[in-house]
Amino acid sequence: MTIETQEETPRIKEPLRRVGITNLRSVAKINWKGRIYTFLPLFEITIDLPAEKKGIHMSRLVESVTEAMSEAVEEEVKEAHTSLEELGRAIIRRLEGKHPHRRAEVWIRTHLIIPRETPASGKVSYEPYDVEVGVIKENKSLEKVLRVKVIGNTVCPHAMANNEGKTHIQRAVAELEVRTAFEENVALEDMIEVVESSFSSPTYTLLKTVDENAVVRRMFENPKFVEDVAREIFSKARERFKGKIHVRVISNESIHKHDVIAETWS
Amino acid sequence: MTIETQEETPRIKEPLRRVGITNLRSVAKINWKGRIYTFLPLFEITIDLPAEKKGIHMSRLVESVTEAMSEAVEEEVKEAHTSLEELGRAIIRRLEGKHPHRRAEVWIRTHLIIPRETPASGKVSYEPYDVEVGVIKENKSLEKVLRVKVIGNTVCPHAMANNEGKTHIQRAVAELEVRTAFEENVALEDMIEVVESSFSSPTYTLLKTVDENAVVRRMFENPKFVEDVAREIFSKARERFKGKIHVRVISNESIHKHDVIAETWS
Amino acid sequence: MTIETQEETPRIKEPLRRVGITNLRSVAKINWKGRIYTFLPLFEITIDLPAEKKGIHMSRLVESVTEAMSEAVEEEVKEAHTSLEELGRAIIRRLEGKHPHRRAEVWIRTHLIIPRETPASGKVSYEPYDVEVGVIKENKSLEKVLRVKVIGNTVCPHAMANNEGKTHIQRAVAELEVRTAFEENVALEDMIEVVESSFSSPTYTLLKTVDENAVVRRMFENPKFVEDVAREIFSKARERFKGKIHVRVISNESIHKHDVIAETWS
Amino acid sequence: MTIETQEETPRIKEPLRRVGITNLRSVAKINWKGRIYTFLPLFEITIDLPAEKKGIHMSRLVESVTEAMSEAVEEEVKEAHTSLEELGRAIIRRLEGKHPHRRAEVWIRTHLIIPRETPASGKVSYEPYDVEVGVIKENKSLEKVLRVKVIGNTVCPHAMANNEGKTHIQRAVAELEVRTAFEENVALEDMIEVVESSFSSPTYTLLKTVDENAVVRRMFENPKFVEDVAREIFSKARERFKGKIHVRVISNESIHKHDVIAETWS
Repeated sequence: MTIETQEETPRIKEPLRRVGITNLRSVAKINWKGRIYTFLPLFEITIDLPAEKKGIHMSRLVESVTEAMSEAVEEEVKEAHTSLEELGRAIIRRLEGKHPHRRAEVWIRTHLIIPRETPASGKVSYEPYDVEVGVIKENKSLEKVLRVKVIGNTVCPHAMANNEGKTHIQRAVAELEVRTAFEENVALEDMIEVVESSFSSPTYTLLKTVDENAVVRRMFENPKFVEDVAREIFSKARERFKGKIHVRVISNESIHKHDVIAETWS
Repeated sequence: MTIETQEETPRIKEPLRRVGITNLRSVAKINWKGRIYTFLPLFEITIDLPAEKKGIHMSRLVESVTEAMSEAVEEEVKEAHTSLEELGRAIIRRLEGKHPHRRAEVWIRTHLIIPRETPASGKVSYEPYDVEVGVIKENKSLEKVLRVKVIGNTVCPHAMANNEGKTHIQRAVAELEVRTAFEENVALEDMIEVVESSFSSPTYTLLKTVDENAVVRRMFENPKFVEDVAREIFSKARERFKGKIHVRVISNESIHKHDVIAETWS
Repeated sequence: MTIETQEETPRIKEPLRRVGITNLRSVAKINWKGRIYTFLPLFEITIDLPAEKKGIHMSRLVESVTEAMSEAVEEEVKEAHTSLEELGRAIIRRLEGKHPHRRAEVWIRTHLIIPRETPASGKVSYEPYDVEVGVIKENKSLEKVLRVKVIGNTVCPHAMANNEGKTHIQRAVAELEVRTAFEENVALEDMIEVVESSFSSPTYTLLKTVDENAVVRRMFENPKFVEDVAREIFSKARERFKGKIHVRVISNESIHKHDVIAETWS
Repeated sequence: MTIETQEETPRIKEPLRRVGITNLRSVAKINWKGRIYTFLPLFEITIDLPAEKKGIHMSRLVESVTEAMSEAVEEEVKEAHTSLEELGRAIIRRLEGKHPHRRAEVWIRTHLIIPRETPASGKVSYEPYDVEVGVIKENKSLEKVLRVKVIGNTVCPHAMANNEGKTHIQRAVAELEVRTAFEENVALEDMIEVVESSFSSPTYTLLKTVDENAVVRRMFENPKFVEDVAREIFSKARERFKGKIHVRVISNESIHKHDVIAETWS
C-alpha cells in the first residue's frame, strides 16, 4: 500500500503560491483559423499548496498536459485547441478534476513562424518569433498573459544628426506583454505586428538585393533611439489592447560591447 | 557644434520608467570587513525619461560607473566601497551630478566565493554563489534588492517512505530575494546561510571520502520535497530579515527530464 | 543596376572553409515511416569561399532552405522528406544549382518527442530529446553527423559501498555523436536508445507512484559512475553503428556545486 | 575502512580520454607584469582513465586547484602565477603528485578587462573580453590553447555600393584560437589586438559624442563583410603567432533575425 507523504502535515505550516513542474518539453497541436499548427513548447504548470499539506501530487500535473494533448490528437483537426491560451485553459480544466487547488497557472513558451512578403521583390519570407502564453485561474476568475519577442533594429538619430547622415545601426530585440481577462480578444499575431512596425525597419529572413536596398533606405529614413521604439510600441499597444501593458526594448549597440535598454509599463 | 538630439521633443510624448545601459561587464573592488575583494560584475544602470525629452545621455551612465570605480582605485584599500550596495549607491551619487532624473536604478550581478569547512575532514572548501544587488532611488527614498542563488539538493521523502529507505536524490537550486530599505542591515552571506541550511544537505566543492559519507548520511536523515525547502527558506528569511521576501526553488529531478518548482513571496 | 560586391577580388586572398547563415529558425516537416512530424529547428548552412571572391551570396542559402521546405509542403504527406538528414541533403541539392562551391554543410538542430511506456503502470509518457543532424558534402562525397542528447541519472557506487547502501544520486546528461557515410543506416531513435539504456535508469516525464518505485529500485540495483555510463554508451555505439563515435557524459552532482565529466571518442 | 570503488576493475574495460570535473567556479590571482589581477574563472580539469580502473578520484582534482590557489595566496604578490597558462601548469604539477595519469588537461575560462583610450576625447574606457586558456599535458609534452572572444562590428560593403553610401551595420563577435607549444610566447592581449583591429571599427564602453562621431566615420570608411573580418584576423594571426590558428566570426545582422558566419582554420 502506498504511503501518501504529500498528504501529511508539514513541519512548517506555510501556504505556497506556486508549486509544480517546469521546463517540460512536449508537443502541442493548435487549430488556428482552420489550419493545424504543431509546436514543441516548454510548459510550466503550478498550483498553490495550502499550509496543512506537505506536498502536491506532481504526476497529476503531467497527466493534465498529456490528456489535454491526446484530446487534441484524438478528435483531430476540427476539434483541436484553437489557440495556445485555449490549450492552457484545457490543461487547467483537466487539472480541476484531478487535484484540489485554489489557484492554477499554465505557461506555454514556443516559437511562431509567420510568412511575410519581402518589401521589394514580393517573395515569401518565413519569420520566427518567440511567444509565451500564461493562463492563471484564481478562484473563479481567469486571466491570461501574452508575450511576444521580436527582432528588429535601431538607427541612431543622434549620430545621424552629427555626422551628415552617417550613423550607427544595430539589431534590437523588443518584448511586449499584455495581461488581461481571458475573454479579451488579443491575437499574438497582432502583438507581433505592433512591435515589428515600431523599429526603424522590420527584418526579414530572405532579402534579395532589391529588398535589402529597400530595408536600408527605410532604416535611414526612420532613425530611432531605443527610447523611440519603446514609446511607439507602448502607445500602439495601449490603443489596441485592453489590459496591463509592459514593454522592454534592448538594442545590441554596434559601437559598444554592452546593450542599451528602454522599459516601461502601465 | 554638437546637436543634442536627446534634448528634442519626441513625437510620442510618453514618460519611460527605465532607460539606460545593460550587460556592461566591468571590475569592482569591495572592502568587505577590511579585506579587499575583486569582482567582474555585470552592471545595469537606468534612469527614468520624462515625456518631453527624446532620449537620455547614455555615456553619462557609463561615466558614473567608471568614476565610482576609479574612486575606489585611487583611495585604495581603506576607502574602497564596503559592499556591493554601497558601490551601487556611489554610482547613483555620481549620476546625480551628471544627469537629471527622478528615479535611478543600479543592478550589479556577480559571483561570491566563500570558504567553508568540510563536514568531517575539516578541510577548507571554496564555495561559489551567484548574487545580485539592486539599489533603487525614487525621489529621496533609497531601496535595495538583494538576491542570492545557492546550489543544494533534495531527497524525496515520498519515494523513501515507499521503498524501504531507498529514494531519488537530485541537485536543487534556490533563490532568495529580500527587498528592503537601504539602511536595513542584510548581509548576502547571511542570506546564503539561510538558503544553504534549508536543503537536505549543503554541498561542497571539495569532499574527501569521509566528508562524502557525512553528506550522504545527512541527506538520508533529512529527506525534503522542494516544497519543504521553499517553506524553510521562507520562514527563516522572514524571521531574520525585514522587508519583502521572495523564494523560488527548482529541483533538477533525477527521475524526470523536467524540473519541479516551489515558489512563494510575502 | 546592382553592383555585385561579392564577386570582387578581396584585399586578402585567403580561402575560407565555412561561410553562411546560422541561428536561422524555421519549420520542417518530416515523413518518418509514413507519419508526418513537424519541427521548428535551428539551421546553419555554410559553403566554402575561394580566395579570389570577396563574399558569398547569403540570400541563396536562405532560398535553398525555403524551397526545400515548400517542396515538402506542396507535395504533401507522402513526398515529404523522410528524415532530418534527407532534408539536409535536399537543401544541399537546391544549393548546388544556385551557388558554386566545393564544400557545403547543413546543420539542423531540433527536439524529438518519443512516446515511451512507464515501467510499472504501463502508461504512455512523452519523452523529449535534443538532436542535431549535419550533412557535409565535399567534392562528390557525402558525410553525415548525427547527435543526440539524453537526460538520465547516475547513482554513485563508491558512496553506496561506503554507506551501507545509501548513496548520492543525480541527473546526468549524455551526448552521443556518430560521424559516418551518408548511406549508413543510423537512426536517431536507435542512438537515443543506446544512450538511455546506459544510465543507472532511464527517466520518464510521467511517473505514477508504482512507476517511481520501479525507477528508484532500478537505480539502486544499478549504481554507476559517470565513467561507467560513458563506457557503456561507447561500447554499445561502436558495436551498433559504423563510423566515428564520440561520447560525452556530464553528471550534475547532488553533493557538489560543480559537474563531473567523462568523455571519449574513436 | 574505506572501500576504493574507483580502483576496482570495470565491467567494460575501455580506456577513457577525459574524466574529471567541470563548471567549477573559483578564484584565481595572476601576477601579470608585476600587477596582481583577480579572476573568478570557470575551471575544467580532466585526466585519462586506463581500461582496468573503474573510476578516478575526483576530489584530488579539486585539491590540485585549491592548493595551486593557496600557493598564490601564501607567497603573495611577487610569487603569484604570472599568466593563466602558468596557473594551468601549476595545477597540472600539483596533480602529478596526487593521481597517476598519462594525459591531463586544465581549462580556465574568465573575463579580461583592459583599459583603452577613446578615439577622440582620449578618455579611459574599460573593455571586457572573454578568454579561455587550456593546458594539455600528454606524456612529457605540454601544449596550450588560447582563445579570445571580441565584440566589434561589420558594415556591409554590398549595401553601401548599392545605396549611395547608405548601408546596414551590426554588432559582430569574433573568436580566435591559437594552439601551440607551451613555451611559445603568445599573449592574450596581443590576440585581442589582432581581432579588435580587424572589424570595421573597434567598440568602446565609454563614448562621448566626439568619440561616437569618430567611430561612426571610421565604420563608413571601412566597410567589411563578415568574410573580410575573418580573413584579416586569420592572416594577421598566422603572421604573428606560431601554431594552429582557428577563426570564427558571427555577425548579428541588423536586417535579418538570423546571424551570418565565416570560419576557417589552419
